[in-house]
Amino acid sequence: MENKLRVGVVGATGFTGEELVKILSRHPNVEVTYVSGKEDRSERIQDIFPYLKNSVDLKCDAFSADEAIEKTDLVFLSLPHTLSMQSAPLFLQAGKKVIDISADYRLQDTKVYEKFYKTAHLDAANLKAAVYGLPELNREQIKSAKLIANPGCYPTGSILGIAPGLASGVFDESSIQIDAKSGVTGAGRKADKALHFSEVNESVKAYRLFEHQHVPEIDQALSGVSKKEVSVVFVPHLIPINRGILSTIYVKLAKKMNTEELLAVYKKFYKNEPFVKVYDAGRLPEIKYVVNTNFCDIGLKVNESKNLAVIVTAIDNLQKGAAGQAVQNMNIMCGFEETAGL
Amino acid sequence: MENKLRVGVVGATGFTGEELVKILSRHPNVEVTYVSGKEDRSERIQDIFPYLKNSVDLKCDAFSADEAIEKTDLVFLSLPHTLSMQSAPLFLQAGKKVIDISADYRLQDTKVYEKFYKTAHLDAANLKAAVYGLPELNREQIKSAKLIANPGCYPTGSILGIAPGLASGVFDESSIQIDAKSGVTGAGRKADKALHFSEVNESVKAYRLFEHQHVPEIDQALSGVSKKEVSVVFVPHLIPINRGILSTIYVKLAKKMNTEELLAVYKKFYKNEPFVKVYDAGRLPEIKYVVNTNFCDIGLKVNESKNLAVIVTAIDNLQKGAAGQAVQNMNIMCGFEETAGL
Amino acid sequence: MENKLRVGVVGATGFTGEELVKILSRHPNVEVTYVSGKEDRSERIQDIFPYLKNSVDLKCDAFSADEAIEKTDLVFLSLPHTLSMQSAPLFLQAGKKVIDISADYRLQDTKVYEKFYKTAHLDAANLKAAVYGLPELNREQIKSAKLIANPGCYPTGSILGIAPGLASGVFDESSIQIDAKSGVTGAGRKADKALHFSEVNESVKAYRLFEHQHVPEIDQALSGVSKKEVSVVFVPHLIPINRGILSTIYVKLAKKMNTEELLAVYKKFYKNEPFVKVYDAGRLPEIKYVVNTNFCDIGLKVNESKNLAVIVTAIDNLQKGAAGQAVQNMNIMCGFEETAGL
Amino acid sequence: MENKLRVGVVGATGFTGEELVKILSRHPNVEVTYVSGKEDRSERIQDIFPYLKNSVDLKCDAFSADEAIEKTDLVFLSLPHTLSMQSAPLFLQAGKKVIDISADYRLQDTKVYEKFYKTAHLDAANLKAAVYGLPELNREQIKSAKLIANPGCYPTGSILGIAPGLASGVFDESSIQIDAKSGVTGAGRKADKALHFSEVNESVKAYRLFEHQHVPEIDQALSGVSKKEVSVVFVPHLIPINRGILSTIYVKLAKKMNTEELLAVYKKFYKNEPFVKVYDAGRLPEIKYVVNTNFCDIGLKVNESKNLAVIVTAIDNLQKGAAGQAVQNMNIMCGFEETAGL
Repeated sequence: MENKLRVGVVGATGFTGEELVKILSRHPNVEVTYVSGKEDRSERIQDIFPYLKNSVDLKCDAFSADEAIEKTDLVFLSLPHTLSMQSAPLFLQAGKKVIDISADYRLQDTKVYEKFYKTAHLDAANLKAAVYGLPELNREQIKSAKLIANPGCYPTGSILGIAPGLASGVFDESSIQIDAKSGVTGAGRKADKALHFSEVNESVKAYRLFEHQHVPEIDQALSGVSKKEVSVVFVPHLIPINRGILSTIYVKLAKKMNTEELLAVYKKFYKNEPFVKVYDAGRLPEIKYVVNTNFCDIGLKVNESKNLAVIVTAIDNLQKGAAGQAVQNMNIMCGFEETAGL
Repeated sequence: MENKLRVGVVGATGFTGEELVKILSRHPNVEVTYVSGKEDRSERIQDIFPYLKNSVDLKCDAFSADEAIEKTDLVFLSLPHTLSMQSAPLFLQAGKKVIDISADYRLQDTKVYEKFYKTAHLDAANLKAAVYGLPELNREQIKSAKLIANPGCYPTGSILGIAPGLASGVFDESSIQIDAKSGVTGAGRKADKALHFSEVNESVKAYRLFEHQHVPEIDQALSGVSKKEVSVVFVPHLIPINRGILSTIYVKLAKKMNTEELLAVYKKFYKNEPFVKVYDAGRLPEIKYVVNTNFCDIGLKVNESKNLAVIVTAIDNLQKGAAGQAVQNMNIMCGFEETAGL
Repeated sequence: MENKLRVGVVGATGFTGEELVKILSRHPNVEVTYVSGKEDRSERIQDIFPYLKNSVDLKCDAFSADEAIEKTDLVFLSLPHTLSMQSAPLFLQAGKKVIDISADYRLQDTKVYEKFYKTAHLDAANLKAAVYGLPELNREQIKSAKLIANPGCYPTGSILGIAPGLASGVFDESSIQIDAKSGVTGAGRKADKALHFSEVNESVKAYRLFEHQHVPEIDQALSGVSKKEVSVVFVPHLIPINRGILSTIYVKLAKKMNTEELLAVYKKFYKNEPFVKVYDAGRLPEIKYVVNTNFCDIGLKVNESKNLAVIVTAIDNLQKGAAGQAVQNMNIMCGFEETAGL
Repeated sequence: MENKLRVGVVGATGFTGEELVKILSRHPNVEVTYVSGKEDRSERIQDIFPYLKNSVDLKCDAFSADEAIEKTDLVFLSLPHTLSMQSAPLFLQAGKKVIDISADYRLQDTKVYEKFYKTAHLDAANLKAAVYGLPELNREQIKSAKLIANPGCYPTGSILGIAPGLASGVFDESSIQIDAKSGVTGAGRKADKALHFSEVNESVKAYRLFEHQHVPEIDQALSGVSKKEVSVVFVPHLIPINRGILSTIYVKLAKKMNTEELLAVYKKFYKNEPFVKVYDAGRLPEIKYVVNTNFCDIGLKVNESKNLAVIVTAIDNLQKGAAGQAVQNMNIMCGFEETAGL
């Protein structure tokens, strides 16, 4: 145990925090040495999540920065937006590595942040040095990062489905439409009538058309890939499943090509990626094949007569869309095997 | 429209209230003339429940007893426990008929009420005159009742499954064990972390073993049938479905009999009942066959070597377990066809 | 009972046939006098669907055209594609009205039929006289029709969401993309590993991209509305719910307009329609509000900077998408109140 | 890789086979070297289950005993009942260890096997040497076993919930009633109308009352523990979830005791067990806490006035109820850490 990295999870009782503790408890290179929850009561994490028997046995109190700094080398902040940027500076100042699961360090333009999150940004200093933690695009910067802005769930599934075509110039970047379908853990673990089992079950709805807070994050990342301004149409839907996002992406092709040719672009782009699987022609991803994994599965089909491609991606929103990707980022930052624990 | 009974639903925005409005909007003998909700905002009920287009178009404000009394002849109180007994007396005094969906008038012994509902009973006067609205047991009293205590969902499914055997003396009344499985609308429409979609979905749990507030209601009704003191073992479970209760009832037989003989007892007991269906040997009820209906389906099988019967009943908790039965009670009280609107 | 229309349901044991019998059993103007199933065994329909107690009590044998012709005035054919066009001529010749739920009479071009259904069309004669039974577009022709081609579930939700904009010339008809999400009853009641509960539950998948057999039906209807050739991009998805289709429709605007202006177009188009509900700005349909109803709910939002509209429609695939619409068609054909029984 | 145990999974495409491959692919001490499926087509297992990218890449053909014997040291037979006893002898004769997931070697009395499985037993010779693979009862025999009869899913949840009380003599062994609720993977991956998503979803049913083929397995194991003949009442239910069994067990106490005292019996019995978690008083197991784990969680409550205990157990039917327990058995047989890979 001596040589293991000491890691902490701040906000361990939400869905993402729970998933983080679960993954980290089986990770060969780390030891979970600190967890905190937002509940007032102090409980052992093992009493909250009984399956941690045999693995993690820690008290889960309200967050104490001093205690967390003392006990950890690297910390995951699994906090609601706006809380992260209040605690991240403390850890960074103490020389700890920080992987922030919230949106606080994702948007480089604080004005955009303020528009979508309705609050001023409090830590512009660290924002500049934050690295957007999508390994398939930014692996090199992640290696030396001190502060990771872990991508949102919708952005992960969307960006990975679009980047290869944009990077290779085969997409009309003004035509991107994303129809995303998400499970309910994406909404967080909270008391909310709209999330009552019987309000969600046996129904589907679209919500926050064009206005979802993940839109600027997608646009920023894709603009970086494209070297042109990208502004997507994004329509999220709530689906009665626990986990998973299926993103159906519609895009006009900038030049004629068929399914096999476009697939070749994708397979080349992702050929060394451990967590992206590009399907052969004729098959499309399904959420069930990625649940409880860190994979992003991708399939696509070209409609030649309309010069249009439909790309379908599937991720587990708590894994590749949050906790799994956070651990993948940690692995890269710390020189562990990239697939360790995943 | 002139001759239709004017009915009101107090608490129209909960699951049971919504179901009541839905049933009543199609009922040939009544007009819904008053609805109230617990929300502060004032909305048209048709904006809350869009499918009421073509049928009910009323404002849904916070409850006003004066307005409700003025506009209705009969009122359904679909309120949380303890609120009903504060408003029922007002309606009764004004000469209105009241069907109370809460537990406030179900238990004849106020001490038992106080033990299970943790609050003093406030209307012992009307309690005495209240009729327990289970038509299969109390049809005659319901006909002339002014105040109906509409049965709970679990008690309806349990009592109907046990009464025939008790009434005919073939059960050992000390041996009754009820394992009940309920959908989530039974817990009410409220913001509660424990009812979050992802806390309930893909899981099953037992809860409130031996202590559920419906136990004394079951015991009281069955003691009435049996003429002996009955005290059941009752274990409710939460199942990830919207509607329905399946009750699996285990009981020792007081005398040797086989499945056909016990079925004959049940078929005779319910032979004129419009809303009870006793299955032939070899088939058992399933929730899907009673959802959105006012039926209680019953099947059973005798284990002759153990001298034990297992009876399975299925109801829709919002219909026969609440709103449907309330309308059935109204039909009986008002001399309508008993199946009208159902 | 003497004056009631005698109706039959051929194929009463599938999901749509079951729904038809359920609706018809409560319809004030008809009596169900004939049902047949595809099973070899002969059973009473009430034993198959226990909730028909109190309403329909008929034998459900294998289909006999002679018996059906003798016992009915109007027949619903709820049969797999290709079987309908073998029996419809018999009923028509005998002077009976026919409402065909299959696709056999929907496509006016038999070549297109043959391409998508992989079989020759066998009844071109009656095809010409068949009326596409979407009342919101074809009410007048339905009134005098002898043979109704009842629309498919996906087409109903799609066409109703697009027709107002096309009819009024505000849409770029070349830009229509439909992302549809359907419940599992849409796939029919059959033994199929791909429809096993645990293959569908907790997952979402897209299927038959660009090639679904409902595409030519949508194109044909919209081309009729538009007076130009329309060819949509259609991507269906399977969602783990029993009933309902949510269609998210993306379309470029042919001229600048905002949400309110486009909503005005829709509200005007549907202002007298009993079963279409256009939502006010700021609210979008959800499947739960249309389940078990014959409504098509419609909401929309314009993205002015992109000159794009997203229209969302919700229907119950077994009601407005099949059996409900079939009954609505019957009501129109027979001069009953259009909402009778619905 | 040189020193890893070579393991094969015969029947790798069913739910249990898939789960086995998934667990084994992450197991530190083994390499999956052989998989077979029942499909005629030959596919790579990685194409069937895309998430095996990075881990297992093998052809999945129809079963060949010769090939399997050549390539493996230990084999898991995840086959339908009756097929296992045809292939197990081949592996045993070749000196391979066999863990049979089917029922073929679970019942020591071939007459009972023949009664419940409606077929003659074909391998009485090996049956005698087979060890019933429930580590909590038979760890010592498992260590030296060549052939493991891996327990059924229902028996695992039931026996673990009852054994401590029987072993310590505090239960009336004639009074045991088990009300079990199972997810749908328990029924296997097969084309079956009764398992269609929409036949199972939003419903619950009881089935095979008193006659389920797991009853003699439970009775045999509990009789062994009790040293008296035990015959339980067992009522299984189908629940619309993918995985998990919740067993609610009702038993009369042979002597007066309270919840804490009975819990002490259970905690002592399981104090060294890595995969059993006994809850403190006041909390009961829920399926969600054991899904995707090899745990059996146990909680209980005594009704002192009725001298009755209700014990609730939760397992994942594919893990502790099948594949997980099979791997636990392998770990014990092969001297690996008992929790390895789990």
